[in-house]
Amino acid sequence: MDEHWMARSLDIARGARPHPNPRVGAVVVDVNGESAGEGSHAGPGSPHAEVVALDSAGASARGGTIYVTLEPCTHVGRTPPCVDAIVAAGIRRVVVAVEDPDVRVAGGGIEALRTAGLDVEVGLMEHEAETLDPGYFHHRRTGRPMVTLKAAATLDGQVAALDGSSQWITDEIARMDAHRLRAGADAVMVGAGTLRVDDPRLDVRLEDYTGPQPVPILVAGARPIPPDARLLARDPIVLTPTALKGVDTIVAPGNGVVDLRLGLEALGRRGIVDVLVEGGPRLAASLLSEDLVDRMVLYLGARLAGGAGKTVFAGEFATLSQSRRVRITHISTVGTCVKIEATLEDD
Amino acid sequence: MDEHWMARSLDIARGARPHPNPRVGAVVVDVNGESAGEGSHAGPGSPHAEVVALDSAGASARGGTIYVTLEPCTHVGRTPPCVDAIVAAGIRRVVVAVEDPDVRVAGGGIEALRTAGLDVEVGLMEHEAETLDPGYFHHRRTGRPMVTLKAAATLDGQVAALDGSSQWITDEIARMDAHRLRAGADAVMVGAGTLRVDDPRLDVRLEDYTGPQPVPILVAGARPIPPDARLLARDPIVLTPTALKGVDTIVAPGNGVVDLRLGLEALGRRGIVDVLVEGGPRLAASLLSEDLVDRMVLYLGARLAGGAGKTVFAGEFATLSQSRRVRITHISTVGTCVKIEATLEDD
Repeated sequence: MDEHWMARSLDIARGARPHPNPRVGAVVVDVNGESAGEGSHAGPGSPHAEVVALDSAGASARGGTIYVTLEPCTHVGRTPPCVDAIVAAGIRRVVVAVEDPDVRVAGGGIEALRTAGLDVEVGLMEHEAETLDPGYFHHRRTGRPMVTLKAAATLDGQVAALDGSSQWITDEIARMDAHRLRAGADAVMVGAGTLRVDDPRLDVRLEDYTGPQPVPILVAGARPIPPDARLLARDPIVLTPTALKGVDTIVAPGNGVVDLRLGLEALGRRGIVDVLVEGGPRLAASLLSEDLVDRMVLYLGARLAGGAGKTVFAGEFATLSQSRRVRITHISTVGTCVKIEATLEDD
Repeated sequence: MDEHWMARSLDIARGARPHPNPRVGAVVVDVNGESAGEGSHAGPGSPHAEVVALDSAGASARGGTIYVTLEPCTHVGRTPPCVDAIVAAGIRRVVVAVEDPDVRVAGGGIEALRTAGLDVEVGLMEHEAETLDPGYFHHRRTGRPMVTLKAAATLDGQVAALDGSSQWITDEIARMDAHRLRAGADAVMVGAGTLRVDDPRLDVRLEDYTGPQPVPILVAGARPIPPDARLLARDPIVLTPTALKGVDTIVAPGNGVVDLRLGLEALGRRGIVDVLVEGGPRLAASLLSEDLVDRMVLYLGARLAGGAGKTVFAGEFATLSQSRRVRITHISTVGTCVKIEATLEDD
């Protein structure tokens, strides 16, 4: 039954949008093996999943088991430590999917529960728990948001023709899917070239969507930002090598251009856990060459370019050893298009 | 039950290699609704599927039904007409999946059976029957072999780096799959550039493979063929703008280069029903621009090139309207790679 209750805890957590805090779900099971309460974490300032589940269970928690997708915390943050709440509720057994990589927890929660005499098991459905919120784990381990690069290309790999035309390589259904990607990200990033060519808003435009909008991020170079860019109306964060007036800037100087690693670290400190990068080819190439791309989502339209146009990554593919290994994690058809998801691998 | 017996007929036909004749399967069902005999066509000079099935059924065919994946023939070729054999066997009802596009049949078989007083139904599982041997239908309708273009590229669409390196963009399992593609084709074609760079043999190299080897076809330009090219040991057919000595040539002059349409028509007259084109980019681009590509099989390796190398098609992708529409017919993972199959669509 442990797997059943942990799967339920994962399901409860799935819909939550708690960043910069982690997605967590918890279920309290009473001494008769019945669910007594469940909960998820809604975000900073809200009670943690364990506390929601324990409150819901009340006296039924006594002698029971709590299943939780992430190690309970020991630190007093915006809310009191979960370990204390679990002990006070009289829980006997705690089943944890995965240890919390946050340095303020990092095994301390498990240790504290064991010290208090509780039976603690760790590692049940660990992979699923990490997959539930990969950005969180990446963010806590590296200090930077997880970077997902999105691109749309023809089947033969061209993101645009030489004259810049690219509307529409994919179809309406693939574009709606890409809006859902945006809806799942804390922030959406583009380079200044894409801002000038496409004038994007980077917002989620889906019928009936009422969730949070991702934070728009612009990576700017030395040239001034077009004052009528539609993105400016959405209060973007601008990563820039030198201070700019009138916009929220993160100054990350790197030899005349933005130091992307510094910039991402600054975004991480602002609590941005995952970023969707939507181009263009120069920004994509810079991120890749600095080893800052974690995942790719590629939409291949049902078209053949039939020649060399613009590629996903700017610059030259000089020799095969320059290529980077990825692992294909998912393939599907979306409308008339192919969607390929991949994670970057260590070479 | 009609669908059941037609599905069986299709299954019987699937493994056959009868080109330039069509893949055909037939089942004779007796008056009690039991299978009395079945057969497929093995190729020129061998009896047709209907005759094999009728011979196997013997007297049990009388009063029964024959299911056949392609319209029975009326013409005396290397074997007598199937229509006569069906009538002589005392069959009452004939179920045909699809009309034969061959001008020597083209509805005449169905008409002859009806004239002889038999009950004839046409069109059951028509799509499946045509998909069983698409090259045959293409060949009989156009006079040319069906052309499938195969390419292997990085996830971001590069078939080679700028220095020409491309071994190995895909993995061993994808390359074995590509050998199975060769095994399914009458002929495998490359351009002279690929001959010079890769020195390919174009044969099927699969453990335990004992089937026929595809005919190697070289599209040559004005430059002489390297005399030590490994392909020459396999007696290729050379498509060339001017006659060459010592090799089997098809002269198809087209303004100093090979007229590919004329060349394919000549291959069609030689009974080649489908051709797998394995590159290079110039030959692929010429075939595409002359509207001679019917299908694509694309292997995308689990790599990112990270820049612009060589593309599937040589030349420029100048503007979006230049792109050609395709229909994705199948996607799968093969080893660590993605395999995408597509057919060219009319624009």
